[in-house]
Amino acid sequence: MDNFTFYNPTRVEFGTGKEQHIGQYLTEYGIKKVLLCYGSDRIKRDGLWAAIERSLAAHDIQLVEFGGIVSNPVISKVREAIAMARQYRVDAVLSVGGGSVLDSAKAIAAGTLYQGDVWDLFIGKGSIDASLPVFDILTLAATGSEMNSGAVVTNDATREKFAIHSVHSFPKVSIINPALMQTVSRDYLVYSAADIIAHAIEGYFTATVQPRFHSRMVEAIVATVIETTEILLDNPADYAARAEFAWAATQALNGLIYSGTSGFSYPNHMIEHALSALFNVPHGAGLSVVMPAWMRWYHTKNPAQFERFARTIFNRRTAEEGIAALEQWFDKIGTPTRLSQLGIAEADLPATIDNVLGNARYFGVAETYPRDVVTAILRSAL
Amino acid sequence: MDNFTFYNPTRVEFGTGKEQHIGQYLTEYGIKKVLLCYGSDRIKRDGLWAAIERSLAAHDIQLVEFGGIVSNPVISKVREAIAMARQYRVDAVLSVGGGSVLDSAKAIAAGTLYQGDVWDLFIGKGSIDASLPVFDILTLAATGSEMNSGAVVTNDATREKFAIHSVHSFPKVSIINPALMQTVSRDYLVYSAADIIAHAIEGYFTATVQPRFHSRMVEAIVATVIETTEILLDNPADYAARAEFAWAATQALNGLIYSGTSGFSYPNHMIEHALSALFNVPHGAGLSVVMPAWMRWYHTKNPAQFERFARTIFNRRTAEEGIAALEQWFDKIGTPTRLSQLGIAEADLPATIDNVLGNARYFGVAETYPRDVVTAILRSAL
Repeated sequence: MDNFTFYNPTRVEFGTGKEQHIGQYLTEYGIKKVLLCYGSDRIKRDGLWAAIERSLAAHDIQLVEFGGIVSNPVISKVREAIAMARQYRVDAVLSVGGGSVLDSAKAIAAGTLYQGDVWDLFIGKGSIDASLPVFDILTLAATGSEMNSGAVVTNDATREKFAIHSVHSFPKVSIINPALMQTVSRDYLVYSAADIIAHAIEGYFTATVQPRFHSRMVEAIVATVIETTEILLDNPADYAARAEFAWAATQALNGLIYSGTSGFSYPNHMIEHALSALFNVPHGAGLSVVMPAWMRWYHTKNPAQFERFARTIFNRRTAEEGIAALEQWFDKIGTPTRLSQLGIAEADLPATIDNVLGNARYFGVAETYPRDVVTAILRSAL
Repeated sequence: MDNFTFYNPTRVEFGTGKEQHIGQYLTEYGIKKVLLCYGSDRIKRDGLWAAIERSLAAHDIQLVEFGGIVSNPVISKVREAIAMARQYRVDAVLSVGGGSVLDSAKAIAAGTLYQGDVWDLFIGKGSIDASLPVFDILTLAATGSEMNSGAVVTNDATREKFAIHSVHSFPKVSIINPALMQTVSRDYLVYSAADIIAHAIEGYFTATVQPRFHSRMVEAIVATVIETTEILLDNPADYAARAEFAWAATQALNGLIYSGTSGFSYPNHMIEHALSALFNVPHGAGLSVVMPAWMRWYHTKNPAQFERFARTIFNRRTAEEGIAALEQWFDKIGTPTRLSQLGIAEADLPATIDNVLGNARYFGVAETYPRDVVTAILRSAL
């Protein structure tokens, strides 16, 4: 096992009704005025907004509203919010939504205290030395952002989908109420399943140091996601399954399964980020297309681990059978496995490949993923 | 899944050479003078002491020495250390050792800032409202104390082995260097294996709400402990196995596998604490005796989970076969499975039973564990 530091100070408040205590949690951290970030107005119709307003009012916390954050969130919107956070002198950012809102909130919180342009923080031109505290009420399980220090945002001018990471960006308190996720659409449920599996398996397959203990924990996550997704497709109101799905999502990207592993990379995310940056496809849908294609290209580089995956997750014998079983499972639950299902055609490949190559440089894996490799993987997914 | 709060702010510094940075870590938290707690003088002979002294000196941190903490640590010794911590006005407690030293350190750190007698904190007569910060260098993997907020100490006057729990008692920084554990004796390695397995399975078998995700994580821990113990018995210098063993120990009791479970109790610990409080047997050795006996009494109350354990861990079919396989494995690695191996005879049972019944009241499970049940379990372990 490699040397590592594990530090994750996020406090998770998990369960039914926890969002009703948001005012109390903010008060514990001395917060008096929050920038409340959200996406669509749906939260105003379903009672969540009213619950938040009530709790904030009960604790004399002022609310500055910033809505309209879209999936695959963009840096122009983050800049707008930073201007607002400064204008109103908020002392915290509260995200209400899924990963797009939360990642934006982290960028807003760091960017508000940064002197230059916030995109600097994504491209290494500036560093995050401080951040407004971030709080969140999660309405979609997948991102993992609720218990980590990262955030991914797209630059809408350059079509680059890049990330920040900072110890200052851990949420102070994350509220995960699985009951709030019951209304997630069938499509977003299966995209989320693909996203969580992708978070879990990137290191599992690519790490040069991958302890068996860590492989077992990854398998616990993947098996749980598969099992609970099937339950939820049958019965979206199954709270127990929704809760396991959500907590597995958190564990997939809170540092635990990567602690002490090394040499890993995020090739599926690297390729997918091009799809969502260029074609605005849902991140999870892009990932379910990329994963089988990438696996078929990669598996001979780590055959024992792919055989292990086939055996432990799908009770199959060979690496190829395991990959086929995953692809069939994606087909069965209804998340795409072909670029054509995303509306991406052969003619779109050159621009996509260029974007992936940019990401490969950004991820530091340009040598492993030259043009011919990226082309082969994407062509096989047409 | 039940509602829960997950909050674990301990920073773990894991890997080779990390102890050489103890001065730096203390400095990051503004520490100028530490009470250095330890057990035997062994650490002065093997180079660890010198490394610590060097690092503290390099950061101008004063050291007040408090040695002689024994396994199954006692409250009288904790009181001595509290007097010293006050006299020298230390601003942190540094534990160098295993669980006994670390649990003592937590009690010392809390007790130093508590006005009354420290045992009050163990029996609910006082509450922990503050604590000196605790840091530790772990030399034995088993306790889990390095990443949780609990501590177990024995009252040497009353022979009660009780616990404290407080959000103020999480270590600030825990240093886990598996290489420091290479010199652990064969006996203590196998006792530790039993201890970790006990931590993992208490909730697994007794929780009334036990999500499958959590069961899978428990199984990941137990399988890893079994696998790595066997490797280490063959080759104590196997760093990779030592590291997985240590990290699995930490995960077994840092809150993760209990998050969202409910209705669980710690019957094996409850019974074992009587053995170590009365007869000073090593905690893990006591647990490997208690576990198979308790399981044979309990398994019919949760048959599906015991069958699951038999199948996933030992590839056996029935609950009884799974229990027998665990007992055989304890025999194989050389940790005791009979009270007689601990030097405890039939004549010792009455006092033992009385002590267990006291623990049952303390653990709040007196109704489930009346005298006849405790007697039956202990007699079956003779």
